[in-house]
Amino acid sequence: MRLTVFTDYSLRVLLMLAGRGDDLLTIAEVAEFFGISEAHLMKVTHTLGKSGWVETVRGRNGGMRLIVDPESLRLDQIIAYLEGDFALAECFTPANQCRLSGACGLERALAQAGSAFNAALSQHTLASLHRKTPMLRA
Amino acid sequence: MRLTVFTDYSLRVLLMLAGRGDDLLTIAEVAEFFGISEAHLMKVTHTLGKSGWVETVRGRNGGMRLIVDPESLRLDQIIAYLEGDFALAECFTPANQCRLSGACGLERALAQAGSAFNAALSQHTLASLHRKTPMLRA
Repeated sequence: MRLTVFTDYSLRVLLMLAGRGDDLLTIAEVAEFFGISEAHLMKVTHTLGKSGWVETVRGRNGGMRLIVDPESLRLDQIIAYLEGDFALAECFTPANQCRLSGACGLERALAQAGSAFNAALSQHTLASLHRKTPMLRA
Repeated sequence: MRLTVFTDYSLRVLLMLAGRGDDLLTIAEVAEFFGISEAHLMKVTHTLGKSGWVETVRGRNGGMRLIVDPESLRLDQIIAYLEGDFALAECFTPANQCRLSGACGLERALAQAGSAFNAALSQHTLASLHRKTPMLRA
């Protein structure tokens, strides 16, 4: 069970943004800091730009900045936005055809585990994660 | 975030096996019951045969049966075996190169959420899941 690479990289960008305030962060900076490709980060930036949390500024002196308070951005919300769904198995998808569905011990157990996962994530905000990451605190 | 189709189908087979006792269950039966392909189930059967939980019997009257007490088989153990790892992000893989690793708020938050997920799964055994699935109780 794994988050997508896209989610992983998006979280890293958000974590860097959390300590920046109004200072623009560039893709080149993120790519260099983490040693990951700029191509991967283009899509990340595009999606974050549509999230309502991040403003992207085009051009030579462009970059991105957070436009919401990182104290208000919970980790469960961020991951739900980036991952799109939390369908652990077929029974949680619209295309579900499992005939046990609705009366299945396994389905309920997986739903509980998913809730426990999200409840744990919801204890953290982007600001609290940033505070616990010394290397990003300038 | 999703379990693999392989894990999904393996769990369904185990759930059917839990109510069977010594009676052999065939791939054809599982395929028909769930409306899924026999080809997918071949690999499932092979892997379950190596798990030490299931005995497979070859031949025309062959099939599979559980050879451990379903009360002793916890859902977290089953999923860990089937999924192979629980590496939510790069920081939990052997190939990890993230420079924040070891001093990262996000890494710790994800580890906690993964633990909460597994702790919830560990509340269930194959037997308890089977008891909560009326359609499989003959």
